[in-house]
Amino acid sequence: MAGTNTRDPDFKPFYAYDEWAVVETAWDEATNLHDETIFSLGNGYLGMRGNFEEGWRGEAGRSTRGTYINGFYETEPIRYPEDAYGYARIGQTMLNVADARGIELHVDGERVDLFSCKLLDYKRTLDFRKGVLTRAMRLELANGYQVDVRIERLVSLARKHAAAIRYAVTTVNFHGLVGLVSTIDGAVRNQVSKGDPRIGSALTEPALETIDRTAVGTLAFLQQRTKRSRFTVMCAAEHRLESEEPAAIQAGTTADGAAIRFTFAAHKGVPSTLVKTIAYHTSKEEPSELDEPKLRLETEHTAQKAKADGFEALLREQEAFLAAFWRRAELSIEGDPSLQQGLRFNAFQLLQSVGRDGETNIGAKGLTGEGYEGHYFWDTETYILPFFLYTSPDIAKQLLTYRYSILDKARARARTMSHKGALFAWRTIGGEETSAYFPAGTAQYHINADIAYALKKYMAATEDESFLIEKGAELLFETARLWADLGDYIPHKGFCINGVTGPDEYTALVNNNAFTNLMAKDHLEFAAATARRLRESDREAYRSLASRIALDDAEVDAWQRAAERMYVPYDAERGITLQDDAFLDRAEWDFDHAPSDKYPLLLHYHPLVIYRHQVLKQADVVLASFLQSHRFTLAQKRRDFDFYERLTTHDSSLSPCIYSIIASEIGRIDKACDYFLRTARMDLDDRNGNTKDGLHTAAMAGAWLSLASGFGGMREREGTLRFAPRIPPKWTAYAFVVSFRGKLLRVRVTAEDATYTLLEGSELTVEHEGRPLGLKPGAPEVVSLRPRLEAIVFDLDGVLVDTASFHYECWKAVADEQGVPIDPSVNERLKGVDRRTSLDIVLERASRTYSEEEKASLAERKNRLYVERIEKLTPAALLPGVEAFLRDVKSRGLKTAIASASRNARRVVERLGLTAYFDAIVEAGAVAKGKPDPEIFMTAAEALGVPYRNCVGVEDAEAGVAAIKAAGMFAVGVGLEERMREADWVLSGTDALDLEALTDRFLGRVPTAVARE
Amino acid sequence: MAGTNTRDPDFKPFYAYDEWAVVETAWDEATNLHDETIFSLGNGYLGMRGNFEEGWRGEAGRSTRGTYINGFYETEPIRYPEDAYGYARIGQTMLNVADARGIELHVDGERVDLFSCKLLDYKRTLDFRKGVLTRAMRLELANGYQVDVRIERLVSLARKHAAAIRYAVTTVNFHGLVGLVSTIDGAVRNQVSKGDPRIGSALTEPALETIDRTAVGTLAFLQQRTKRSRFTVMCAAEHRLESEEPAAIQAGTTADGAAIRFTFAAHKGVPSTLVKTIAYHTSKEEPSELDEPKLRLETEHTAQKAKADGFEALLREQEAFLAAFWRRAELSIEGDPSLQQGLRFNAFQLLQSVGRDGETNIGAKGLTGEGYEGHYFWDTETYILPFFLYTSPDIAKQLLTYRYSILDKARARARTMSHKGALFAWRTIGGEETSAYFPAGTAQYHINADIAYALKKYMAATEDESFLIEKGAELLFETARLWADLGDYIPHKGFCINGVTGPDEYTALVNNNAFTNLMAKDHLEFAAATARRLRESDREAYRSLASRIALDDAEVDAWQRAAERMYVPYDAERGITLQDDAFLDRAEWDFDHAPSDKYPLLLHYHPLVIYRHQVLKQADVVLASFLQSHRFTLAQKRRDFDFYERLTTHDSSLSPCIYSIIASEIGRIDKACDYFLRTARMDLDDRNGNTKDGLHTAAMAGAWLSLASGFGGMREREGTLRFAPRIPPKWTAYAFVVSFRGKLLRVRVTAEDATYTLLEGSELTVEHEGRPLGLKPGAPEVVSLRPRLEAIVFDLDGVLVDTASFHYECWKAVADEQGVPIDPSVNERLKGVDRRTSLDIVLERASRTYSEEEKASLAERKNRLYVERIEKLTPAALLPGVEAFLRDVKSRGLKTAIASASRNARRVVERLGLTAYFDAIVEAGAVAKGKPDPEIFMTAAEALGVPYRNCVGVEDAEAGVAAIKAAGMFAVGVGLEERMREADWVLSGTDALDLEALTDRFLGRVPTAVARE
Repeated sequence: MAGTNTRDPDFKPFYAYDEWAVVETAWDEATNLHDETIFSLGNGYLGMRGNFEEGWRGEAGRSTRGTYINGFYETEPIRYPEDAYGYARIGQTMLNVADARGIELHVDGERVDLFSCKLLDYKRTLDFRKGVLTRAMRLELANGYQVDVRIERLVSLARKHAAAIRYAVTTVNFHGLVGLVSTIDGAVRNQVSKGDPRIGSALTEPALETIDRTAVGTLAFLQQRTKRSRFTVMCAAEHRLESEEPAAIQAGTTADGAAIRFTFAAHKGVPSTLVKTIAYHTSKEEPSELDEPKLRLETEHTAQKAKADGFEALLREQEAFLAAFWRRAELSIEGDPSLQQGLRFNAFQLLQSVGRDGETNIGAKGLTGEGYEGHYFWDTETYILPFFLYTSPDIAKQLLTYRYSILDKARARARTMSHKGALFAWRTIGGEETSAYFPAGTAQYHINADIAYALKKYMAATEDESFLIEKGAELLFETARLWADLGDYIPHKGFCINGVTGPDEYTALVNNNAFTNLMAKDHLEFAAATARRLRESDREAYRSLASRIALDDAEVDAWQRAAERMYVPYDAERGITLQDDAFLDRAEWDFDHAPSDKYPLLLHYHPLVIYRHQVLKQADVVLASFLQSHRFTLAQKRRDFDFYERLTTHDSSLSPCIYSIIASEIGRIDKACDYFLRTARMDLDDRNGNTKDGLHTAAMAGAWLSLASGFGGMREREGTLRFAPRIPPKWTAYAFVVSFRGKLLRVRVTAEDATYTLLEGSELTVEHEGRPLGLKPGAPEVVSLRPRLEAIVFDLDGVLVDTASFHYECWKAVADEQGVPIDPSVNERLKGVDRRTSLDIVLERASRTYSEEEKASLAERKNRLYVERIEKLTPAALLPGVEAFLRDVKSRGLKTAIASASRNARRVVERLGLTAYFDAIVEAGAVAKGKPDPEIFMTAAEALGVPYRNCVGVEDAEAGVAAIKAAGMFAVGVGLEERMREADWVLSGTDALDLEALTDRFLGRVPTAVARE
Repeated sequence: MAGTNTRDPDFKPFYAYDEWAVVETAWDEATNLHDETIFSLGNGYLGMRGNFEEGWRGEAGRSTRGTYINGFYETEPIRYPEDAYGYARIGQTMLNVADARGIELHVDGERVDLFSCKLLDYKRTLDFRKGVLTRAMRLELANGYQVDVRIERLVSLARKHAAAIRYAVTTVNFHGLVGLVSTIDGAVRNQVSKGDPRIGSALTEPALETIDRTAVGTLAFLQQRTKRSRFTVMCAAEHRLESEEPAAIQAGTTADGAAIRFTFAAHKGVPSTLVKTIAYHTSKEEPSELDEPKLRLETEHTAQKAKADGFEALLREQEAFLAAFWRRAELSIEGDPSLQQGLRFNAFQLLQSVGRDGETNIGAKGLTGEGYEGHYFWDTETYILPFFLYTSPDIAKQLLTYRYSILDKARARARTMSHKGALFAWRTIGGEETSAYFPAGTAQYHINADIAYALKKYMAATEDESFLIEKGAELLFETARLWADLGDYIPHKGFCINGVTGPDEYTALVNNNAFTNLMAKDHLEFAAATARRLRESDREAYRSLASRIALDDAEVDAWQRAAERMYVPYDAERGITLQDDAFLDRAEWDFDHAPSDKYPLLLHYHPLVIYRHQVLKQADVVLASFLQSHRFTLAQKRRDFDFYERLTTHDSSLSPCIYSIIASEIGRIDKACDYFLRTARMDLDDRNGNTKDGLHTAAMAGAWLSLASGFGGMREREGTLRFAPRIPPKWTAYAFVVSFRGKLLRVRVTAEDATYTLLEGSELTVEHEGRPLGLKPGAPEVVSLRPRLEAIVFDLDGVLVDTASFHYECWKAVADEQGVPIDPSVNERLKGVDRRTSLDIVLERASRTYSEEEKASLAERKNRLYVERIEKLTPAALLPGVEAFLRDVKSRGLKTAIASASRNARRVVERLGLTAYFDAIVEAGAVAKGKPDPEIFMTAAEALGVPYRNCVGVEDAEAGVAAIKAAGMFAVGVGLEERMREADWVLSGTDALDLEALTDRFLGRVPTAVARE
């Protein structure tokens, strides 16, 4: 890991671990901003930070009071010090709206709170199943009076516009006069930006003006309007006091607020309870068109209805809602309660922040803080939507519906950018582009493909054809159009997408970002396939849509062609997918001399300095290798992971979860755990140090993906869910539940086995490690995860036949012709090495240099000699014991393959008469990288359809043994012990090959150390 | 030309042509903003737009009143909508200061000006030799009264702080009471930016506050201070009235100004004259440290001294100053008075705008307007300083002194950017970076090398060793340091400079901008060489400097190494220098479908769209091929010019002059003229449509370069001035004068000859077309420019010997071996074609495809056969007449060369026994591009040291004849007439070669058309 973006080792957790809650038992002013975020409540429409009802009288700057309404924003012209054509013109900021939570407590006229009293007892609990934030305190006044306060707060998941507080106060050791002042405070404003581009808004003045405020009886009411966007928000609060003695009630208003004061005599030890029910309603109509009385009635009605139904009813609704949610979002990690708590907290908070009305979405910080101004990003489709898709598919649909609702604005943006089709805003609330730094904003065209990706996944998981026809197809086609227009056919390369920025924002404005191009390829393929399918399956609907958006068949064909010819930069020498065309042209970031206090880099280096180097903020190619999993071989994923991991700072919270997923897939289980730890409790433990500005919603969803798609190995491909589970050594078991095509599936994994249980639905076929499992209700399928010897992959030269000596003979002939000295000492160095590299070794002693042309000609000459030599091979050349061993292997039903660096392997096997013994032959030409890269062995295993861990590889060369081990296989080395240190079992010769003995060692029945003697 | 950035054909000039003036004889309100810029006055310190003394009462927005003081600016924090580390923090804006020009005229109490009266006569003259702006008007009032007004204005070139106005008024046909109200008006402010990034400032409020204003007797005084930068400016005006009748004088003040009113009776026909002398002084000290009384005394003294000396004395000083200037800046274009006027206007205005005090520089718009906020750019060193270097070297020194004065700020900027050394601000006044869009600002690191380039040129032209030791070396080393730190050694490439923007702002944030890398290479070489030289030549001074800036020998060696290994991107296939690594990876801009109203592109397309395409705002590689002339062969310049010209919009005013220079050099004289026309009168004719915002100072200087370095072919290399003059067909003659090493040289060019006259100095050696000319006073050297047959360059195969048949024989042998059909019809296609391309032609009929390795092997085989065949050659194989012709040619003293596409030419010539006949042999391996590219012929001529136009080329192939013509040589074709259409003379066979006949045709004595029969 390159970054130092990790907590110090003696980090103390903020909260006690609890299965279904976050519990705080001591209050610390220093961590208050963080706590406020953690204890946020919301229902996807309305969000409230965990501020105290009694207000803040501590150190200034240690509290951010926040009440937010999803999609409710103020606009502000963006002013550029150097302007240019096409820049985003209008900023949007999710507003901090009137605070209706206020309840001040007075005892005998003195204000009682944490700041004025001694705190004798304190407990705050956010319960994931009740959906309630509870705070219980015992406070002692200067005069020794003690008061118990217990406050329950909820934002109703069942009632979009409603919230409620139950405030119970008990005078512990005295009788006295208690006052409760309940307020709606409209004198609120957003945080102002102060340099860190991630925090604060462009709004420099309060955005809301008060239109009306009234207080009558127990009803308080406030109406405000945004100055520029002309949106209206109304807030009402109703109250019911239960006290032994009757209370005096005073209603009053201030310039921007309203208050109801309850004063009553309290008897020692007898609780009095105030229930405050709160309602928010908004309207985006122009003031002249707004039916104000109606909206006001609605607002008051929401508060009054909640009051009438009572707090207990609200609690029951809340619990029922969450029970339904958790049934589908069930998850557990046995053996690590803190991680389990982290994942459940994440799921609960995601639910609280996600817009469910099809008109709103989920901000980068949800409804929990003002970071990123409440904007919606690609985070939704890439991280968050998949979580909901597999737990609450209806919410996924609403998120896609939101995108459709702003499609016209995406079309307009494309026009401004001189493009065809639709281009979604990089950051927005209302749909317009609001990113004021285009190299890391508008240039991230990939958002178009991310949205299409989400639609594709949605369609596979739901088969919701009516959504596709009504909205999805139009969205898909208009966004696909953009790629076809944006890209260009560049000579010698193919279809290129230039001048974009990929997910990694530490590199900007590049040509052919691999992530973007792969996602666009997928997008174009899906769009073309969908168009062709609909053209047949729903002729009428397709014709109507095509005519509305002027789509003809030629354009669909052009999508397909662009997808086919999509260029993806690749470095053949290193065998890595290049993040962009020029990635290797940059210098490496000097991690060794980078002080640890310089992270995140973006706060310490000019963008030019960062952009110029090989350094990543976050997963980019590695993310592509997850989202476009099927386009990468496992060997490729592994090389890409290893290459980019050491360059990645994880300065973005979106990164560790993805690295965890791929680390799981490529068998780096320790790394997978490390990254999972960094993402699963990112906010609970404040790992990035900025939870105070709001939760990291994408990372929270990413943590779920790290579990399901990482450890669980879950991938959806062509409508089938596939799993390849593994489990961290520390865990006893883990489980998660997945919704798919109306069915509900539980996957539970232990070190021994994986259990697939169909909880809902009549049948479902999934794949486990490439093999189909038909599931029926009440019949869980249990699959062993223990290793099992299923296949043997053989090297050829030196293992089955000694053609190594032929190679030497032929090279010697060539060397002699050229007058280059050669002797058998080079023979060993030629083993497992490709032809061109072999030639360079042979020519090391040449007295002159050879041109490339000459070298090509010599290599060709050697090959001709070698091919001639092979033709003279007979089965007599087989190494001792080989044929018997092969016969034995086949008779036991094991699969077999050849993995040879030679390009003539197939012919050799033919000449040896062994063709029938092998299910697959992989020659050098079929892979990008030779041994010691594991690719050739992995390719062989994939060809056989056997998991790597169930394969044995047999090799006679050091590089070959290294390749086998890198592939995660059991390695048998034939040859000298000292050259086979990495091998699990070393044999002096092929005659020692014995399947029984091998099986024992493979299953660990005989320790391999013994075999080494 | 790609851009449509040209005037419409029926453009009418604004002003009458005049040799030494701009003369306006009719006033047009519609062009007033443009006129105000053109009629600007200045002295490098103080600048005044050509506003009317009487103020503006025409249409609002049709006048920009402007008085500017070089280096006097207000600061303003730059606010970014999305901020990041290291961004420029403080803007600077050259201030519009108090206007002291005001003189209102009243007749019998009525205000008299162009707006209230009928204009009977009008003439405005800006005289380049007098340095005076004169306006003469006859105005008729509504009552028929006529008044003559004659106003002369000057900003004293001899007195930094002084300006003066002589205002003469004559009542033509009446006696009356005349009032003259002379004002200083401090209620001024700068223009505010409105979208176009090139215009207006960030200042949203008036920047100056009035500290004091007084009016006593005939003296008016105003003191103001900037609100943020805390600079003080004082302005005083003194007056002397000469009138027949005594005048009443009233002095008074307003909130921000002061006024003196003169009222007197005027007799019909008798002129009265008011002389107003104006002074501006400024101070950058903090108010608390400022010696206010002293500054005020100085200011008043300047005005009073000028009054005492009298207007005539000021006029005389002005004329003397300009006479000295013009002696050194003399230039003429006989045959095109409008261009001559343009160039003289440019020189005069440059002088008026350039800071000469070592503390100021010259803004992009000089002191004539508010475009680009008065900032200094690379324009100075790249365009403007060279003009002054060769006309007023002292001014060049002051410009470099300015850079030294801000070196500490450049060091600080480098620190902010995490770099070593010094990084000069892309745009600044006070030295701090003020560019608010880094991709086209700070990313233009090349400014460091541009400054070093200017220093290098300055040293070569002045040998000013003391400047080098005191300031230059430190400047040079600190800026060189930056490159060594910025660049990186990238595998397979060399020393790379990534993530920069070159001069062409339509491409940003690229790797290895060729211009930047070539300039940095030159910079590093010069810095290393200077360090090593000083280490020997001035040990003590060097040691002191090195210790002060902690420079050791290893660092100097590292500069040299970086220079040597500097990577410059190049496309071998096309043979062009690449503007940057990825230039060819971009799609071409669709010029064919780009509407003409979309220029300049920057006002109509988002930067992402522009950056993504092959489209240039301005010269980039082409500029490098001028500044780093010696690093490009002529053939290379030609290919680069042709490639980039069609992609260049010239949306930047810095572009046409450079294209003109290179067009001249590569012999595209028509294009050179077109571009020259666009640059020489850019502002007089308002070609870019924005002269209203100020003059284009860099383009004005560039026009001079187009004359001297373009048509005159002037280059300085290793301390010698070199010329290669040519003249546009329309011109009779042109001349310019150059200062060099204390000498003064005039170059005069006609179609017949070039005359070099040493005006000052005892001797000077220059080069004319590569040959030294020793010049002495009073002995002009006249060199004929008529063509003269000096050399003959021969193709080999088919011209001297028929090895073409050998090639065919050998290819046939190879084809036969492969079983590929071949017949002599392919023979003709193989002529002049390289080996690899020939192979592809031979294999066209093959029944299978060949791998690259196989092809390499076949090409190798053919070559072996061919080399064997050559070894059997004897002189008997010579074609008929060849040896006799060669003998004749050598006996006449002509030079000879071989230019052959073969790689075995030298051996063939040896075998033929002709070695002694040839001065040079150029084989295919020595050039980047084969025929029909002219490179091989140009390289041969360069090897012979003969100008192309004095060479003859002899060829038997069509591609070869094309190459000869492209090189600008006379072409002799041997072969069939129909294949030689481009040749100047066609012979049926070599036996017809005849030197006498060739010479006649070459000199045009026998028309070539006759020879074609």
